[in-house]
Amino acid sequence: MSSKKHTIVIVGYGGMGSYHAQLIGENEHLEVAGSFDPLRARQEASEAAGYKAYASYEEVLSDPAVEVVLIATPNDVHKEIAVRALQAGKHVVCEKPVAMSSDEFKEMIAAADESGRVLMVHQNRRWDEDFRVIKQMYETETIGALFQIESRVHGANGIPGDWRHVKEQGGGMLLDWGVHLLDQLLFMIDSKVISVSSTLSYILGNDVDDGFEAVLQFENGIKAIVEVGTTNFITLPRWYVKGIEGSAVIEDWSLNGRIVTRNSESEHREPTPIRAGVGLTKTMAPPSEGSTITEALPPAAELPDGFYNNFVAVIEGNAEPIVKNAEVLRVQNLIEAIFAAAEKNEVIKNFDTYEA
Amino acid sequence: MSSKKHTIVIVGYGGMGSYHAQLIGENEHLEVAGSFDPLRARQEASEAAGYKAYASYEEVLSDPAVEVVLIATPNDVHKEIAVRALQAGKHVVCEKPVAMSSDEFKEMIAAADESGRVLMVHQNRRWDEDFRVIKQMYETETIGALFQIESRVHGANGIPGDWRHVKEQGGGMLLDWGVHLLDQLLFMIDSKVISVSSTLSYILGNDVDDGFEAVLQFENGIKAIVEVGTTNFITLPRWYVKGIEGSAVIEDWSLNGRIVTRNSESEHREPTPIRAGVGLTKTMAPPSEGSTITEALPPAAELPDGFYNNFVAVIEGNAEPIVKNAEVLRVQNLIEAIFAAAEKNEVIKNFDTYEA
Repeated sequence: MSSKKHTIVIVGYGGMGSYHAQLIGENEHLEVAGSFDPLRARQEASEAAGYKAYASYEEVLSDPAVEVVLIATPNDVHKEIAVRALQAGKHVVCEKPVAMSSDEFKEMIAAADESGRVLMVHQNRRWDEDFRVIKQMYETETIGALFQIESRVHGANGIPGDWRHVKEQGGGMLLDWGVHLLDQLLFMIDSKVISVSSTLSYILGNDVDDGFEAVLQFENGIKAIVEVGTTNFITLPRWYVKGIEGSAVIEDWSLNGRIVTRNSESEHREPTPIRAGVGLTKTMAPPSEGSTITEALPPAAELPDGFYNNFVAVIEGNAEPIVKNAEVLRVQNLIEAIFAAAEKNEVIKNFDTYEA
Repeated sequence: MSSKKHTIVIVGYGGMGSYHAQLIGENEHLEVAGSFDPLRARQEASEAAGYKAYASYEEVLSDPAVEVVLIATPNDVHKEIAVRALQAGKHVVCEKPVAMSSDEFKEMIAAADESGRVLMVHQNRRWDEDFRVIKQMYETETIGALFQIESRVHGANGIPGDWRHVKEQGGGMLLDWGVHLLDQLLFMIDSKVISVSSTLSYILGNDVDDGFEAVLQFENGIKAIVEVGTTNFITLPRWYVKGIEGSAVIEDWSLNGRIVTRNSESEHREPTPIRAGVGLTKTMAPPSEGSTITEALPPAAELPDGFYNNFVAVIEGNAEPIVKNAEVLRVQNLIEAIFAAAEKNEVIKNFDTYEA
């Protein structure tokens, strides 16, 4: 690692921008050199936090002391800001979703390639502990090979009242939370998505989706259900997964959860039929006593490095990015298939750019 | 009501047949006159329970004392047994799924029409209390108009080891539990199904599905998810529904559950962002304190009569059947669309025989 700190200017000093300032402040190889935001109140907030408020984006780009531009603006201006930064010789960290379309993102990748600068997308939820617990189960087959993975995020607050409910700025829940949940799945599951079906929810009356559900079929036989809801006054578990030997649940962000597996040591005993509603059922009776084992969740899988440490190593030429642009492009492409599946009410196939 | 008891012979004296004997015994207008089952052990069980074991089906049909034939056999022989009974002038009660296909069921309906006898299918789970609580919420809009209804039945015991895992006999979970869950939805929701997508699970290696998930879109805007699983060591709630004003859950057969609705009396306060994984979220933060109300589930909707009381009134010409054959045909037709959707991996449309 270089002993000199790399300097970053944060473009878009709203909620995410100021959150990044905090993250960057915690990294010993990076420092915030300032911010640019057209809103006066945010310029003042930046200065109050000790970060120079650049007067214009041109001023940022022409400042040779600035090595990195971090983009935390609404989605519709990511591309222009990124391309101009790359052309000015800056590295770029960009918030998710990286762009309004895969075509836009391809322009951004081309600009990075031409300039020889790094473009990395802040898919930070690859580091979420809940996800990494599932990743651990996937990799080590804690409950046998997983064949069904259900990933849900439920809230009851609707869409935030800012640009996130404006279609032209890339609002809506599929682009907001969806991009995280889909990125996690494609990062974990090394297989082609062979089909997707989906429904988008517009119950709140916005132009953009207030939630969605997508069903993904992978070539390796895994089925994944991805759901985001903002009209859910009761939440279903964050993760629900099924493996050959058992099931697992992670209820919430606090990682309450458990795994329940078949007890291979126990003698097989038929379950006792139960009364369910007005009928009897043996099929849906609880497994007989002793035939299953309930245990705590396994520890989370570790990633090779943190996001910003990895970014530093990448710009110094010492590591591959953990968040690869080919992966981000694949997720963007999947999002477009999910929009198409919902709009046409069809199963969409043959779209995935996966390469083994 | 006639003071004389109507006599029923139970064809197929297995688990369901003997369960019917018990139900019929509880009804003051009906009595079990005997059973027919080709297996010697079941003939003995019937006689031990005090019910004459007929030596052949011909003997049942030619016995003028027998008014009703109840069919509780494997699914592949329902049609033949029913048609012969109707042609012999008997009324018929048939277990679900009524037939192997909608074409078979149409033959059965035609035989009933020709003979002027009653054919009624034992869709008994219309009387399940959990379902009737949801029906109450649907009809009285306890949590506002419902727009999403998720109906799940999860077990971990696999498919029962009898004919229910044999394809040629109409095995599999879509035909077994699926027919109940779908019948409940179509009974409750007075709207056309405009599309269905589905996946069937074959994880246990049988010829028949060990579970399925279907997504139904109704013309009135309701989305329904119907899922049956036999490889679920952890169960998701039996019912999860969303309305314009709140959400409701019924966890299990014991009717543990609750409704959570928006508190319209509370001042709107933005929720406080929470740390979720490695990021912050306001969207997925719990609603601010006091902004929601948690209450008990409403009482269950009542049906006009019980299954067997209604059957008696129908054969005496005093009532319409609660389980109508046109409804059962519509469910059978939907099941065929679900099989087709899974096999083709396509969204199936324009199949519903619904008439307003």
